[in-house]
Amino acid sequence: MIKAGIVGATGYAGAELVRLLLGHPQVELTAISSVSFEGTALSEVYPSYRGLCDMVCADQDTVVEKCDVIFAALPHGLSQGLAQQCADHGKVFIDLGADFRLEDEETYKAWYDGEFDNKELHKQAVYGMPEFFRDEIKGKKLIANPGCYTTAVPMALAPAVVNHLVSVQGIIADCKSGTTGCGRKPSQRTHYPELNESFSAYKVANHRHCPEMEQTLTKLSGQKASVTFVPHLLPINRGILATCYARLNEGVTEEQLRQVYEAFYKDEYFVRVLPKGAVADVKHVRCSNFVDVSIHVDEKANLLVAISAIDNMVKGAAGQAVQNMNLVFGLEETMGLTMVPPAF
Amino acid sequence: MIKAGIVGATGYAGAELVRLLLGHPQVELTAISSVSFEGTALSEVYPSYRGLCDMVCADQDTVVEKCDVIFAALPHGLSQGLAQQCADHGKVFIDLGADFRLEDEETYKAWYDGEFDNKELHKQAVYGMPEFFRDEIKGKKLIANPGCYTTAVPMALAPAVVNHLVSVQGIIADCKSGTTGCGRKPSQRTHYPELNESFSAYKVANHRHCPEMEQTLTKLSGQKASVTFVPHLLPINRGILATCYARLNEGVTEEQLRQVYEAFYKDEYFVRVLPKGAVADVKHVRCSNFVDVSIHVDEKANLLVAISAIDNMVKGAAGQAVQNMNLVFGLEETMGLTMVPPAF
Amino acid sequence: MIKAGIVGATGYAGAELVRLLLGHPQVELTAISSVSFEGTALSEVYPSYRGLCDMVCADQDTVVEKCDVIFAALPHGLSQGLAQQCADHGKVFIDLGADFRLEDEETYKAWYDGEFDNKELHKQAVYGMPEFFRDEIKGKKLIANPGCYTTAVPMALAPAVVNHLVSVQGIIADCKSGTTGCGRKPSQRTHYPELNESFSAYKVANHRHCPEMEQTLTKLSGQKASVTFVPHLLPINRGILATCYARLNEGVTEEQLRQVYEAFYKDEYFVRVLPKGAVADVKHVRCSNFVDVSIHVDEKANLLVAISAIDNMVKGAAGQAVQNMNLVFGLEETMGLTMVPPAF
Amino acid sequence: MIKAGIVGATGYAGAELVRLLLGHPQVELTAISSVSFEGTALSEVYPSYRGLCDMVCADQDTVVEKCDVIFAALPHGLSQGLAQQCADHGKVFIDLGADFRLEDEETYKAWYDGEFDNKELHKQAVYGMPEFFRDEIKGKKLIANPGCYTTAVPMALAPAVVNHLVSVQGIIADCKSGTTGCGRKPSQRTHYPELNESFSAYKVANHRHCPEMEQTLTKLSGQKASVTFVPHLLPINRGILATCYARLNEGVTEEQLRQVYEAFYKDEYFVRVLPKGAVADVKHVRCSNFVDVSIHVDEKANLLVAISAIDNMVKGAAGQAVQNMNLVFGLEETMGLTMVPPAF
Repeated sequence: MIKAGIVGATGYAGAELVRLLLGHPQVELTAISSVSFEGTALSEVYPSYRGLCDMVCADQDTVVEKCDVIFAALPHGLSQGLAQQCADHGKVFIDLGADFRLEDEETYKAWYDGEFDNKELHKQAVYGMPEFFRDEIKGKKLIANPGCYTTAVPMALAPAVVNHLVSVQGIIADCKSGTTGCGRKPSQRTHYPELNESFSAYKVANHRHCPEMEQTLTKLSGQKASVTFVPHLLPINRGILATCYARLNEGVTEEQLRQVYEAFYKDEYFVRVLPKGAVADVKHVRCSNFVDVSIHVDEKANLLVAISAIDNMVKGAAGQAVQNMNLVFGLEETMGLTMVPPAF
Repeated sequence: MIKAGIVGATGYAGAELVRLLLGHPQVELTAISSVSFEGTALSEVYPSYRGLCDMVCADQDTVVEKCDVIFAALPHGLSQGLAQQCADHGKVFIDLGADFRLEDEETYKAWYDGEFDNKELHKQAVYGMPEFFRDEIKGKKLIANPGCYTTAVPMALAPAVVNHLVSVQGIIADCKSGTTGCGRKPSQRTHYPELNESFSAYKVANHRHCPEMEQTLTKLSGQKASVTFVPHLLPINRGILATCYARLNEGVTEEQLRQVYEAFYKDEYFVRVLPKGAVADVKHVRCSNFVDVSIHVDEKANLLVAISAIDNMVKGAAGQAVQNMNLVFGLEETMGLTMVPPAF
Repeated sequence: MIKAGIVGATGYAGAELVRLLLGHPQVELTAISSVSFEGTALSEVYPSYRGLCDMVCADQDTVVEKCDVIFAALPHGLSQGLAQQCADHGKVFIDLGADFRLEDEETYKAWYDGEFDNKELHKQAVYGMPEFFRDEIKGKKLIANPGCYTTAVPMALAPAVVNHLVSVQGIIADCKSGTTGCGRKPSQRTHYPELNESFSAYKVANHRHCPEMEQTLTKLSGQKASVTFVPHLLPINRGILATCYARLNEGVTEEQLRQVYEAFYKDEYFVRVLPKGAVADVKHVRCSNFVDVSIHVDEKANLLVAISAIDNMVKGAAGQAVQNMNLVFGLEETMGLTMVPPAF
Repeated sequence: MIKAGIVGATGYAGAELVRLLLGHPQVELTAISSVSFEGTALSEVYPSYRGLCDMVCADQDTVVEKCDVIFAALPHGLSQGLAQQCADHGKVFIDLGADFRLEDEETYKAWYDGEFDNKELHKQAVYGMPEFFRDEIKGKKLIANPGCYTTAVPMALAPAVVNHLVSVQGIIADCKSGTTGCGRKPSQRTHYPELNESFSAYKVANHRHCPEMEQTLTKLSGQKASVTFVPHLLPINRGILATCYARLNEGVTEEQLRQVYEAFYKDEYFVRVLPKGAVADVKHVRCSNFVDVSIHVDEKANLLVAISAIDNMVKGAAGQAVQNMNLVFGLEETMGLTMVPPAF
């Protein structure tokens, strides 16, 4: 059994990790920590877990000491020290935060107003999108788990981008996220009477996930990608729908795209390319690690409309982290992640 | 592996059974049927199941023939023939409908406007509430799976009723159900723009589940119970909250009640008696087979307020059916039902 | 034109008052204040009001000075001083808070942990439920506007209680409120991802509104009333549904009740007694000052089930306050309150 | 008083017209009709209207005969005959359906599979977007009231398009609509348990409103416009958010855009251009005729992101129809439409 620990277990990503790890057949959830709730049982914070995870929140050091793999779901900036600590103790570290996602320090500075404390450590970090970078992840010790939007958008576009069927310049990613993406901390924005029956965009063309998705699309295509990213907040709990627009290269047809998408993802358990006529819906991947992708073409405008749906807390956070852990430890990649999404 | 089949698999209870049985380690989902969708893959009806259950709906006879245990989720009146068919072929039959729940034929006639086709068959039926009637269920072949409200209300009151701490006359059960309880068929009532942001009661003191919960409370107490049952429809998907009011017998205290409740349910994996101060919430049992129970006393009025929360589709339907199957086949009672309810 | 002002205009009740007063033909909204947002335009706090109420929040003294009538929506304890200030300046004061609702100081102390600063002032206060105490309200200068639950419950029961058709002992009021009842301040409880798809009770048989509704029912019946009051929080924005249970006196029939209810409320513009078979729904009174009342009888248990629906922010707060203002100033009672509730 | 009638009063647009016309000071709602509910009181269909509009649904002929202005909210194809009937009787006809919106018959055929029965009549029709075509509407007798999406998108882009600051080719309109846009008829898609907590696109780049918005943008710009239109369905009742992307012409800056937008809409009561930093939200225009517009620039991509929010049932249907009626009859354009949108 792998001994797993979570630093920042009382945030939403941490709590979702608890749910998934409790159901993982090769993992023993060994320790959890939380700055805000040290000394409190997790089930006091999340009564859903009563009787299932009454473990008391310890401190970070305890988690590092007791566990083989440490997951962290922390505000940005705080993971770097923890990563160093894990490295020093030879532990596997899977970071759900943003500290190790961007390879370029200048970009990190520009968007996160911080520095790379240890540049060597950053070089060891692997970007954990298994469907694209599987071989690099296996056996590594420092994994930068992707963000939610930055999982959804490349998933929608990868087959077209890898096969040079669309331009990677001028991509538009109109994304809509459920409210768990805002985290656990209450705010006026997420106060029920104000968010309920509302719908709006935020950080229009000015969100930190933009350089991260550009980085992935650039890697996949081998060409510098640019994205206009507009996130919106949906009055639902879970899910991201990414509606992505990309200019088709000369002569590319919908049929061709469909074949390329199906071929690209055919061995991927978690990716479901929908048949012609179907449209991806966040409902259908809820509480699961699946990514549903549907493709549509506006022939008049010579435009690909690629839509992906993920659960932002699973494939967009905790589920992908477990998938990465499985790869790191040489387990079956889908282990602990084969739950059926509820139909309603 | 037990070969399991579902008759009426495209209704909500049937579809939820599919979700649970796919995750059951000792069950192979072998055949499903649907009158409305014969010949159609289940994943066309429920795209959440794409790639996970693309099984095509067959007819009822096929299900009976191929399977060891047949679950049925049918409109009332239709299960009796199927039960006979299963009995004739020596198959285990677990009925999620109402045909075999009421022991008294006159009551059945009064509320369901039907008859017992085969009175002998009705005598063999066991009412499948494992927490109360576990020993009667084991090894039986015809199980009447309880209704949703009729699970929630007795769960809230059983310890008090069994121990004669409250009067079983004049009980009030003010219940609130999520909309999956209305079934899959669209109606004006469940049309999104009309149900959203609404809240109302229905069938006030005139709902078919009333005699069924009275039957259970009567059995548990050994005294004729009477309940005023008022169901309400909540604009959420899943869950029943049953707020039950019962007059305390002379001298009964909250402490005493708390001890009795904790003792009564202490070996029940699926029942969580909440600590003083906590209140049951449908959120905390969502997608799981748990029953959360909280108790409160209005000393001024000498009244017990017992509140239970279940997921109407799991403990109130499909989950309890699987629990019954486990008992019938001598498996661990919790097998396939230990999923952690999502915290959000 | 009446010059109206609001102290505490940025809370939900205050903001709803703004909406109503802007549409009132005989009122000029003259000044508003807010401790938290002094110096800020109301439309910055509530962008819905942009261009319609860009008035800047001033301080309390300014409001009292400039206005003929002062509405206050303040945390309990803070209205007493303001009431005194209004009295000293000869202004009409309509208090949406709890400070003047309870006539008995001991009860106030027990539930609000405060005192009556000026007992004389309390004697001058009139409890502002126009349907019941209309004549006492006219021309008065200090109005205690009722709470939300404490409007809904007596509205459901008054005709039966006044006419001694039910016992006023042992009443059960199982109430469900929308989330605007929690106020504007964010909290974990009202954080969208946690409240959405949840449903629970709170302050079970221990809520401050209980003595207030008992006071009203006692006045109406002339007998000491006792209520077990259990509030629940609904994941919708607006509305209270009060499901009230009262024991019928010997020989009282549903027909008789229906006649009494219709007669009692026949001249009340805002009260709609629903025809047999219909059930009150919060949806149908949304954003309006209406009270829908439906009555049902459980003959078996000899129980009246009376259900009322109000919009907690209108009839349960700001609308009733305007209705009181109309009475105080001798205007048509319905003025500014005849908006049609949206059908969806 | 203008005698107004509604043909198709029990659909959502018709019912919303009832709400608005009941509050209009110069209108008497004189007759309504409904094929499905002839002989039934409107308040039986919409209990919100009980006591406010208990008018019984008559037939179409009665409405035409009794009224000065006839509004119709009918499935496409059915308005043409009614328009003729109104023309023959000299009545004003305001059509909320699609029959008279498209000027080009071939386009109509392609998208609606119908013909122009009377080409002369079509020539008399005026497209009723008051903010753009006010002068053409005044005094006319046949008004084609725009669709919902086709109001939202041009409203977001008009100032930029009219002033040639963006290309009208390659526009992307990623729109999200509340569920009242699906109409009153229940369907699997709008069945509460399935739509709740879902989010998806539909008719991707293949929706009938596309040619209509292209027609408006072409008229406004004087150049052939082309739009890729992707509608999505939001699990809320009311509102459309249109997130529109258009390529900026050389050298156009955000400041310049902001000035142009403010100047363009400065005399428009119903249009609120939001200040820098604010983002349009459907919540803030709910139940009102307002259009909130926010503009954003992605400098990197040289792209305008213009976002508009309307209530699809008001500015997107019934409200705009009343605005058109006011213009036709020479009334104050905002009459009956100055309600304050509720803040929550």
